[in-house]
Amino acid sequence: MSGHRAGPHFLQIPGPSNVPGRILRAIERPTIDHRGPMFQELAKTVLAKIKPIFKTTNPVIIFPSSGTGAWEAALVNTLSPGDRVLMVETGQFSTLWVELATRIGLDPEVIPGDWRRGVPPEVVDERLSRDPEHRIKAVCVVHNETSTGATSRIAEVRSAIDRAKHPALFLVDTISGLASADYRHDEWGVDVTITGSQKGLMLPPGLGFNAVSDKAIAASKTAKTSRSYWDWGAQLGQNPSGNFPYTPATNLLYGLNEACDMLMDEGLDNVFARHERHAEATRRAVRHWGLEIQCEDAREYSPVLTGVVMPDGHDADAVRRVILENFDMSLGAGLGKVKGRMFRIGHLGDFNDLLLCGTLAGCEMGLRMAGVPIQTGGVQMAMDYLTGNA
Amino acid sequence: MSGHRAGPHFLQIPGPSNVPGRILRAIERPTIDHRGPMFQELAKTVLAKIKPIFKTTNPVIIFPSSGTGAWEAALVNTLSPGDRVLMVETGQFSTLWVELATRIGLDPEVIPGDWRRGVPPEVVDERLSRDPEHRIKAVCVVHNETSTGATSRIAEVRSAIDRAKHPALFLVDTISGLASADYRHDEWGVDVTITGSQKGLMLPPGLGFNAVSDKAIAASKTAKTSRSYWDWGAQLGQNPSGNFPYTPATNLLYGLNEACDMLMDEGLDNVFARHERHAEATRRAVRHWGLEIQCEDAREYSPVLTGVVMPDGHDADAVRRVILENFDMSLGAGLGKVKGRMFRIGHLGDFNDLLLCGTLAGCEMGLRMAGVPIQTGGVQMAMDYLTGNA
Amino acid sequence: MSGHRAGPHFLQIPGPSNVPGRILRAIERPTIDHRGPMFQELAKTVLAKIKPIFKTTNPVIIFPSSGTGAWEAALVNTLSPGDRVLMVETGQFSTLWVELATRIGLDPEVIPGDWRRGVPPEVVDERLSRDPEHRIKAVCVVHNETSTGATSRIAEVRSAIDRAKHPALFLVDTISGLASADYRHDEWGVDVTITGSQKGLMLPPGLGFNAVSDKAIAASKTAKTSRSYWDWGAQLGQNPSGNFPYTPATNLLYGLNEACDMLMDEGLDNVFARHERHAEATRRAVRHWGLEIQCEDAREYSPVLTGVVMPDGHDADAVRRVILENFDMSLGAGLGKVKGRMFRIGHLGDFNDLLLCGTLAGCEMGLRMAGVPIQTGGVQMAMDYLTGNA
Amino acid sequence: MSGHRAGPHFLQIPGPSNVPGRILRAIERPTIDHRGPMFQELAKTVLAKIKPIFKTTNPVIIFPSSGTGAWEAALVNTLSPGDRVLMVETGQFSTLWVELATRIGLDPEVIPGDWRRGVPPEVVDERLSRDPEHRIKAVCVVHNETSTGATSRIAEVRSAIDRAKHPALFLVDTISGLASADYRHDEWGVDVTITGSQKGLMLPPGLGFNAVSDKAIAASKTAKTSRSYWDWGAQLGQNPSGNFPYTPATNLLYGLNEACDMLMDEGLDNVFARHERHAEATRRAVRHWGLEIQCEDAREYSPVLTGVVMPDGHDADAVRRVILENFDMSLGAGLGKVKGRMFRIGHLGDFNDLLLCGTLAGCEMGLRMAGVPIQTGGVQMAMDYLTGNA
Repeated sequence: MSGHRAGPHFLQIPGPSNVPGRILRAIERPTIDHRGPMFQELAKTVLAKIKPIFKTTNPVIIFPSSGTGAWEAALVNTLSPGDRVLMVETGQFSTLWVELATRIGLDPEVIPGDWRRGVPPEVVDERLSRDPEHRIKAVCVVHNETSTGATSRIAEVRSAIDRAKHPALFLVDTISGLASADYRHDEWGVDVTITGSQKGLMLPPGLGFNAVSDKAIAASKTAKTSRSYWDWGAQLGQNPSGNFPYTPATNLLYGLNEACDMLMDEGLDNVFARHERHAEATRRAVRHWGLEIQCEDAREYSPVLTGVVMPDGHDADAVRRVILENFDMSLGAGLGKVKGRMFRIGHLGDFNDLLLCGTLAGCEMGLRMAGVPIQTGGVQMAMDYLTGNA
Repeated sequence: MSGHRAGPHFLQIPGPSNVPGRILRAIERPTIDHRGPMFQELAKTVLAKIKPIFKTTNPVIIFPSSGTGAWEAALVNTLSPGDRVLMVETGQFSTLWVELATRIGLDPEVIPGDWRRGVPPEVVDERLSRDPEHRIKAVCVVHNETSTGATSRIAEVRSAIDRAKHPALFLVDTISGLASADYRHDEWGVDVTITGSQKGLMLPPGLGFNAVSDKAIAASKTAKTSRSYWDWGAQLGQNPSGNFPYTPATNLLYGLNEACDMLMDEGLDNVFARHERHAEATRRAVRHWGLEIQCEDAREYSPVLTGVVMPDGHDADAVRRVILENFDMSLGAGLGKVKGRMFRIGHLGDFNDLLLCGTLAGCEMGLRMAGVPIQTGGVQMAMDYLTGNA
Repeated sequence: MSGHRAGPHFLQIPGPSNVPGRILRAIERPTIDHRGPMFQELAKTVLAKIKPIFKTTNPVIIFPSSGTGAWEAALVNTLSPGDRVLMVETGQFSTLWVELATRIGLDPEVIPGDWRRGVPPEVVDERLSRDPEHRIKAVCVVHNETSTGATSRIAEVRSAIDRAKHPALFLVDTISGLASADYRHDEWGVDVTITGSQKGLMLPPGLGFNAVSDKAIAASKTAKTSRSYWDWGAQLGQNPSGNFPYTPATNLLYGLNEACDMLMDEGLDNVFARHERHAEATRRAVRHWGLEIQCEDAREYSPVLTGVVMPDGHDADAVRRVILENFDMSLGAGLGKVKGRMFRIGHLGDFNDLLLCGTLAGCEMGLRMAGVPIQTGGVQMAMDYLTGNA
Repeated sequence: MSGHRAGPHFLQIPGPSNVPGRILRAIERPTIDHRGPMFQELAKTVLAKIKPIFKTTNPVIIFPSSGTGAWEAALVNTLSPGDRVLMVETGQFSTLWVELATRIGLDPEVIPGDWRRGVPPEVVDERLSRDPEHRIKAVCVVHNETSTGATSRIAEVRSAIDRAKHPALFLVDTISGLASADYRHDEWGVDVTITGSQKGLMLPPGLGFNAVSDKAIAASKTAKTSRSYWDWGAQLGQNPSGNFPYTPATNLLYGLNEACDMLMDEGLDNVFARHERHAEATRRAVRHWGLEIQCEDAREYSPVLTGVVMPDGHDADAVRRVILENFDMSLGAGLGKVKGRMFRIGHLGDFNDLLLCGTLAGCEMGLRMAGVPIQTGGVQMAMDYLTGNA
């Protein structure tokens, strides 16, 4: 792949998403003293601006970390070694979270899934109802499963927990959902919401987030899992004055400040509607091609990404290679047990109609060049939808 | 148009073209002393690297100016008040150049044209043959007429001058052609080649260029039009040591250095082939829509832009407004006498297949939304062509 | 000079000045359609914001050019071939302006000077008084002579013209003065004010400016010097709608917008006081070193730069080389007839106390290393002054 | 502190250090697919380039984290709950590391110190010699104590361990030392070297590093402290193919690549000599002022920062405030038990002679303005030294 390639790369994986120039230029500002008044002003501003993105009035804690770190932070602050946690297999990321929980000494009980739908609220209800002794300490689910493109109905999972009258903590990973799909930390009674910077927040990777409920904070005071870097206590103590217990990732915070402004300027509801519209246009293209969508439940279609199932005998990774080489576009691979059997189109973040058309055109042309039998005209379907829903 | 708009703007006018991030970051470097050794090194490097882009071994002079300034420079250095110059009406820009020539005291004789083709070489031949006294001092033509999308056959115009055995200087404006369409200053015997930074060179506007032949330099020594800023003499004297007669636009020179590297890295022939391919794909879309292409001669189709003629009763500027509002894409307006009757799609510079598909999708959707009767499926035609010619 | 050098270069020539990161990042934004509504908004904003910097309510015209271009624009718009203009020799730049005037067909009469002071108002008065037939059509002076560091008393020159009851136009070059030294286009009755982007405006080079009086505009309607690029008419016609007669240097206009905000945010009076304070500190250092200041009249000391005269037998350029090699700092050379006999310290633009101390330290250390006999302690003198005048 | 301040902020805390524009522009490049071939190429390149900076041929592991995270990573990978670790109190950071060790379940034994010197090798030797049963599993020391400006003699500590014939692991924090002070992971037999991005590496904060010996890797296979994010295993498994176990901080890796090039281009020995020279110049200024240097042992003077002790009755933080307000310079506060009694001058990273002179001038002027009784002339002392040691 030597030689300059003209035009921008299309980064259509479901995150990291395309970082807008405005955010890159914000990040490029000189690093400042993280103990000085200018930084403290920035920190207080950003810590306030991020709350409405989570739809919470409670604190949001920011770590210099990946989203994986924020997963770990959520667990180690609220749980003790040996605690049982109920987790639901929705795809590769829920599976990795189970592994993490095991590694740090928790006892995950996993509701199995087929990777083609979100969390079944009724199954959560049923399982919790069979736990009168409340041995299950937390319910951990993924909001938008990045590996499949199924978005769980978090409000309904909350209702399921409530119906079971179960006191378990409710931990939700919305790493690839926040700021793309509607999400309501307070209204949905989530105790810890986990996210990262590189998806709907449109930043480069490097920040992990925990939005926390009062109940989660209370739990953190008795939880016995050892922790230091991830400890909420010092963060909650120092954040109100614009400080962090250790050196924060200052330049990404510049970018976060800008990202919050951009999201609020567009309007969160407009942001969500834009993502839904692009997702629907994408699905129309995929169906027209004659390909299956990985998510089987229309209520759970992801506004963030669309998983595309390959016909038998065709390797999704070969298609992705053809597209990368010919059209300079990165698509998401099938992960874990669906490796090679699907690819993922990201349509999130700093994205618009014409980029979507270019993206779908790249998919359609690449599928043809890779010899996958498809019906052409998918981009036209998407355009028809976009035109009729401008 | 308040509120943040997600995703990048599509700048699909035929220049300024989309400036790649790599060039913007180069331009962003701190300004340095334009009389110091580091700058002199840069200047010598850039003045050498720019020559192969013009396909010349002669000097190229760089002004802090627009392309209009470079037009003026070409004329005032080589001609004297009252000199007759033969100019050919190919569109709005050739017309503006005639006005400029008149304003500075030359005597332009204009071969009229219908704005739907390039310079007719045989008419040049015929006219020069009727000038045995060589009262015509220069032939001035536009290589790529930005207002119509017709690219004149410069080599054939050169042959026409030669056939007429006429000593006139040959001045060629390739402001929107250079580094997008094949261009050969030396081989085609051009005396002054004029260009600007903001088209195929992928820079922001702010630099004007004159590539000069020995004959042009000789003419500049006797030409009597008064000049100071545009004077070649001081430039030719100081450039070899990496200096300029007045403060140069240092930061744009950083960008020019980068642009030359990018063009050479991709390979000029690859650059030209890419533009031709995108132009052909565009024309297939336009024809499928049932719309006429402004340029009527297939030998003169521009690889840089495509002029699209509106059906009677439809205003091109209204279509452009719909597209700008709905799809955040800028297209070129019809200029001068074709205002409102056509629009122009730029497909030049830092551009690739997926941006082209997005661009054509924006045009097709916008035409429909503006109520222009078109046959949908133009993007599909373009994709079919691109797929078959990867 | 191979190998990476740590730390920033000190660009202490009297322009281009150090461009602040905030402006560089503004310039780095993507180029937009210069005929579209977003650009028109920008243009109208910038054309309004620049006026208070000149202290005028009249139009300011912006060219994609160097300051030299703006010099030419001022002359060709207001004067006719053969017109006599009174010019005053204050240094190299006034001399170059005379040459330019000659080249474009004017008839400059030069009041000679010794390069150690500004324009003597009484001599202007005296000369104009001897011109009862008003053959002198314009008085052309340099406000801040960049080659020497003498700032002419423009208000007093205006009074001199008034005392002589002479109708000559008053043209003032404040290329290196504007936004560093107090300047009042309207109050001082200047007809054309000339400046460039790369000094007090803190931008990279590439923009030239003419602020114009009603009288100048009236003169432009009858002036017979041929002109096209520099013509005010088209600019004045198109600017009010946010347009330019040819492609503007869009990205520098982004920077100009930012620069105006920065200057107004600091406050022009604070900007001027800062420059005066740094200039006084610099002069105290220079005097302590035992070196002479090029400007001999304390009323005319420049707040922008300080010219430092070398003792006999010492080459200023050798000192500058030592400083560049050892301390990565660029200083201004002696120009024209003072080449080698002086160097210039720029203390303008985006500059503060600690950069000044670093700058003076580099001068003092470099002078010693170059073997120039100086008394050390100059930086201390500057610090004492700064401390006492914080 | 409203209103724009002219000129750059002086960030003279001992880290984050001033990030050079070249690195900021590298970081500003668009984020790419962290699973794609272009990223893998970058990752392999960076993981190779970073090794010589640590002077190791062994792997270096990079976390998206602060330096504090890298501390934790070093401990949790190599030690088991209840393990005794020998730590030496050199200042605030060694103290914080002890707290961290305690928090994660280790049993630190602390050799007390007075914060005015580095690790006493002989005391380490003596203590280890009294541990014939090898209950001490690791010796943990800070190379460059950022809170005081004392640089421990790591080679001698290594010899002390060897003399005691003790098998303890040797863990060294060189968060503020690496790439400023000479450091030799392999030659000094260090098992885990810990650093962060925001000091000598000249990056914004956000990356933590562990360079690891074979012995450390072996220890990690049996260590029982639970860990997931910080686990070396997955990193060591995936890094060779250019992958990371979770999303890396891509944009900081762009910057790291650039930083390695800059350091190697200058030459590590030149980098170290530059820091030593600036530190010596700083100490001469401090002594001339009549103030005490926090570090009492000349063998342990830090090349990175200088701690300045205040005379009785004077508050260092008040001085810092005066300097921040008047000269826009941030200095390091006294931390922990020396709060208010000292301040710290950082002279590390992307730094040069003239910035140092500006920095010292700001200190000297600020001390005077704050009413601290000092002898002026400190900057002169520094300049004399710099001039004599160019």
